[in-house]
Amino acid sequence: MEKEAIFELRMKVRDYEVDSEGIVNNACYLNYLEHTRHEFCDSAGLSFRDMRSRGMAPVVRHISINYLSSLGLGTEFRSLLTFTRKGARFIFHQWITDNDGRRIVDAEVTIVNLIDGKLTRGDELAEAFARYL
Amino acid sequence: MEKEAIFELRMKVRDYEVDSEGIVNNACYLNYLEHTRHEFCDSAGLSFRDMRSRGMAPVVRHISINYLSSLGLGTEFRSLLTFTRKGARFIFHQWITDNDGRRIVDAEVTIVNLIDGKLTRGDELAEAFARYL
Amino acid sequence: MEKEAIFELRMKVRDYEVDSEGIVNNACYLNYLEHTRHEFCDSAGLSFRDMRSRGMAPVVRHISINYLSSLGLGTEFRSLLTFTRKGARFIFHQWITDNDGRRIVDAEVTIVNLIDGKLTRGDELAEAFARYL
Amino acid sequence: MEKEAIFELRMKVRDYEVDSEGIVNNACYLNYLEHTRHEFCDSAGLSFRDMRSRGMAPVVRHISINYLSSLGLGTEFRSLLTFTRKGARFIFHQWITDNDGRRIVDAEVTIVNLIDGKLTRGDELAEAFARYL
Repeated sequence: MEKEAIFELRMKVRDYEVDSEGIVNNACYLNYLEHTRHEFCDSAGLSFRDMRSRGMAPVVRHISINYLSSLGLGTEFRSLLTFTRKGARFIFHQWITDNDGRRIVDAEVTIVNLIDGKLTRGDELAEAFARYL
Repeated sequence: MEKEAIFELRMKVRDYEVDSEGIVNNACYLNYLEHTRHEFCDSAGLSFRDMRSRGMAPVVRHISINYLSSLGLGTEFRSLLTFTRKGARFIFHQWITDNDGRRIVDAEVTIVNLIDGKLTRGDELAEAFARYL
Repeated sequence: MEKEAIFELRMKVRDYEVDSEGIVNNACYLNYLEHTRHEFCDSAGLSFRDMRSRGMAPVVRHISINYLSSLGLGTEFRSLLTFTRKGARFIFHQWITDNDGRRIVDAEVTIVNLIDGKLTRGDELAEAFARYL
Repeated sequence: MEKEAIFELRMKVRDYEVDSEGIVNNACYLNYLEHTRHEFCDSAGLSFRDMRSRGMAPVVRHISINYLSSLGLGTEFRSLLTFTRKGARFIFHQWITDNDGRRIVDAEVTIVNLIDGKLTRGDELAEAFARYL
C-alpha cells in the first residue's frame, strides 16, 4: 500500500526535456527526483550547499524506477517523496503524478552519506531528518 | 538603456545544472532562456504544445549572450524578457538577475517562425503577441 | 556470473556532465546507457531514425541501476551491453567500466516496443535482433 | 574569409539531445562547443582536469552563435575550432558541419582565465597554447 508523502514539489516540464518521441526523456526523471530530494533537504533545513560546505556528500547507490506513463510538452506535475533509514542507507520512495492523479513514475532511490570522501553511518543525515524518522 | 521587462519568471538552480567549477554551466542558461520564452508564450495564450499542433515551429536563428556573473548551488533567480519584431524576426532581449539584483546574464535571442517547415513572415506569432507590439 | 557483452562503445566523459561533487551526475549514466543502446541498434542495422520513420517507438518501462564507483573529468570509459527477450519485453543488461576495468555502474533496462502508439509483442525488434537471440 | 581550423573533433548526435521538433536543441550546441574546446586543450597537453588541479578556471564571458541549419537523430558531424588572443581574452572561433560539409552553427566564444577565482592576464593559457599563437 502506498505510503504517504512527507514532501511534495510542484513542477512543470521544460520543453527541452522532451525528446523526439514527444515525451520527457527517461534520464530527465532522475533530474526531477534529485531536485525534489534537494528541495526536501532544503525544507528540512539542510541545503545541498550547506552539506557541501560541511564536507558532506550524499551519494546515490541504487535507483529502481518504473516508467508507468509519460509527460509531454508543458505538462504540470507533482513530485512526491517519503523515506526510511536502514542503517547507513536512506531509502527514498519517490513518485510523480500529473495533475489528474495519473502515476507517471515510481522510484526507489538509495542514498548513503560521505564525509570528506568516507562512507558514514548516516548519523548526520539522520539528525537533519530527525522529525521524519 | 535597459528596456522594461514584459514577462518575468522566478526560478531556482537545480543542483545538477552546476558543474565541477561550482557554477551553473554556460549551456544551462540557454535552457533557462528557452523555458522563459515558452512560459511567456504560454502566458500570451499560445503554448508551445499548441504551436506544435498547428504546425508552427519557432526556431532560434542567433543567440548572443554575455556571462556577467554566475549562479551557484540552490540559488534563486529571476529571468526576464522583452522583445521587438523586425520583419520576420522576433528579437528577444532576455536577462537573468539573482535576488540581490545582480545581473548574471544578458542575452539577445533571434527567433523566426516556421510553418510546416517553411519560413514565415511571422504574422502568426505577431498576432499571438499583438498586445505587446 | 557476468554475461558476455555483445556490444561495446568507447566513450569519454564530457566535462559538463560532471556536477559540483566532481563526479558524473547520476542522471547522465542513463544518457550513456541510452546512447549505447541506440548505437547497438544502429550496428544491428536498425537506427533509431529508421524506427521513427516506421512508427516504431521503443520505450523504457523499468531501469534498475547500481552506482558502484564514479567517473570524473575527462575520464575514458567503456559501455557494454547484452540482452534477452522475455515475451514483449527486451531486458538489456548494461554496464560501464573505466579503462582499468573498474566497474562504475551496472544496470538492467526493460524496453517494450510501441508501433503507432500501441504496445506490440516485440516481433519487429526481435527480427532486427535475430542474430543475437 | 574562413580561417583554417587548428582542431577538429568528430562527433555524433546522441538521440536524447534531439527535442520534440526532431532537431538538436539549441543549448546542446554549447555542450558540443565546450566539449570540443576541452578536447582541444587536452590535445594541447592541458586537460581541464589538470587546470582544475592547478586552480585554473577558464570561464566563458561571451558567446555569439548563429544557427544556420540543424542536426537530427543519429547524425554524424564535425566540430572545428581556431582561436586568437586579445590581451586577457581568448576568442575561439568554432563551427560545426555535417558530413556533407553543410554548415550547422558558427560561433564565437570568448574565454578568460581565472586562477584561484581571480582574473588573470591569460599568460598561463597562452603558454599552454604557445604553438598556436
